[in-house]
Amino acid sequence: MVFSGSGGQGVITAAIILAEAAVLYDGLNAIQSQSYGAEARGGATRSDIIISDTTIHYPKVIQPNVLVCLTQAAYNKFYSIIRPGGLLISDSRYVQTEKKVDAQQKEIALYETVLEKIGKPIVFNICMLGAVSAIVEVVSPESIMKALENRIPADFLDMNRKALDIGIELGEATVR
Amino acid sequence: MVFSGSGGQGVITAAIILAEAAVLYDGLNAIQSQSYGAEARGGATRSDIIISDTTIHYPKVIQPNVLVCLTQAAYNKFYSIIRPGGLLISDSRYVQTEKKVDAQQKEIALYETVLEKIGKPIVFNICMLGAVSAIVEVVSPESIMKALENRIPADFLDMNRKALDIGIELGEATVR
Repeated sequence: MVFSGSGGQGVITAAIILAEAAVLYDGLNAIQSQSYGAEARGGATRSDIIISDTTIHYPKVIQPNVLVCLTQAAYNKFYSIIRPGGLLISDSRYVQTEKKVDAQQKEIALYETVLEKIGKPIVFNICMLGAVSAIVEVVSPESIMKALENRIPADFLDMNRKALDIGIELGEATVR
Repeated sequence: MVFSGSGGQGVITAAIILAEAAVLYDGLNAIQSQSYGAEARGGATRSDIIISDTTIHYPKVIQPNVLVCLTQAAYNKFYSIIRPGGLLISDSRYVQTEKKVDAQQKEIALYETVLEKIGKPIVFNICMLGAVSAIVEVVSPESIMKALENRIPADFLDMNRKALDIGIELGEATVR
């Protein structure tokens, strides 16, 4: 998978939590990485996650099965790397999905729903994780919640749990 | 470089901050990654950073020039990967450096000094970054501070700045 967006949206944190959930609670292997270069100074952040039930030999994602784009800049920069037949998830508020790709595209109102139901965009990334876990079924939502409990201060857990649940509902609604 | 320690010590955060500092403020390229597998369930966390002034082709660290070990378990697990002639930095409170390695070993009182001067071990990782930046001179302490300002809530910046300064002093003391 590749999660992409702007610097403050928490795509790296989301990727680390997903990888930790997969490894610690679902018995899988994972590699999570960030590549920075000229583009990091430009605006689109990218975070890669490989999850497997066997040993992972090559640590970089070339063609993701799942690509998440949380900004237009990230979409414009990364849409073309999606694996043919893959899944491209984007935020409906931030991204106009005008490109033609050989993949399923799902536009989800992640940002708007978080803002409406929680009021704070800070858990936008956790809402995204909920949607991904509902649609892709690689890592269980319960494992993601446990990984959150490890990383997030107790005062913020309720808000994160709520964001995760909202994401799961939004994700499930797209596969019904 | 490889930063290693236990889960709660913040080695991943330290690695991300170092990579961001290198890229955003020192004009370098960087790749930062975590590999998780059976060992993530065991106790020693490892975080890899490659920093270069040219394009980075292979994203994983095989033999780090700099290896930091913040726990005995991390030291026992990773000491042998140090590049011959490299630099192995360990925390003097947590690690007994009893192995023979073809590298320079520096034991630094990071944890004890943070606890004595700040009282909170939460910025142990930032103190370690300060020491690394003083000894290795790849990324400037000013750039690390700017990267911290991007990531750390304003209320905690003073404590992080102090931890970084303590680390720089401890690091400089080892190269005088």
